[in-house]
Amino acid sequence: MDIDTIKYNEQGLVPVITQDTETGDVLMFAWMNPESLKQTLKTGIMTYWSRSRQQLWIKGETSGNIQEVDEIFVDCDADVILFKVTPKGLGAACHKGYRSCFFRAVNRENGNYSVVAERVFDPNEIYK
Amino acid sequence: MDIDTIKYNEQGLVPVITQDTETGDVLMFAWMNPESLKQTLKTGIMTYWSRSRQQLWIKGETSGNIQEVDEIFVDCDADVILFKVTPKGLGAACHKGYRSCFFRAVNRENGNYSVVAERVFDPNEIYK
Repeated sequence: MDIDTIKYNEQGLVPVITQDTETGDVLMFAWMNPESLKQTLKTGIMTYWSRSRQQLWIKGETSGNIQEVDEIFVDCDADVILFKVTPKGLGAACHKGYRSCFFRAVNRENGNYSVVAERVFDPNEIYK
Repeated sequence: MDIDTIKYNEQGLVPVITQDTETGDVLMFAWMNPESLKQTLKTGIMTYWSRSRQQLWIKGETSGNIQEVDEIFVDCDADVILFKVTPKGLGAACHKGYRSCFFRAVNRENGNYSVVAERVFDPNEIYK
């Protein structure tokens, strides 16, 4: 099948962009290896490869903030995958408590950050 | 300034996601080094680092399909940057003639691709 032509990098990983189907917001950026891609396709639940833990990472497995796959796209070079998903639970993709990991805007003039989103949970309460 | 805390990978690069401000479509995925980020911030025109050519890459410099920066976001780990842009010219981010590089959908059942977008130019006509 076509998906077998996905090009993995030197570490055997492919970059993955996860976008909210409903809002169009980019939620996060992560990586998959062939096994996590296979499991994601099979289960319809986003399953990444955790580079820090070196293991399969079912996003939201413990918190309930899983991501259901709606649509999948592959780029022209077949070396990046874009997933459109529906976030479940509290809907927070970010461990800092935001819907999207991209919750900070960069001021182009001075290069400074400012938080531009509302937290949906307080990480100090959740990750004790 | 905050932007100086961006974490570059072992190759000195940071992954960049480029999204169409108006449609919310993810247009492409590429990389920046500190110099290309600096130039992008200064000029407001997307300037990537070409890994294949090992040089600064002003997207659309020859074709006119440049990307004007509207908004910039940084992720929780400060190791991915999201740019919202306005595509100019024919508005094609993809060298294959599509607005977005993610012009192929993946069928989750059988892993096959299908083209789901219209071409805005014919690459055989443009790149002679």
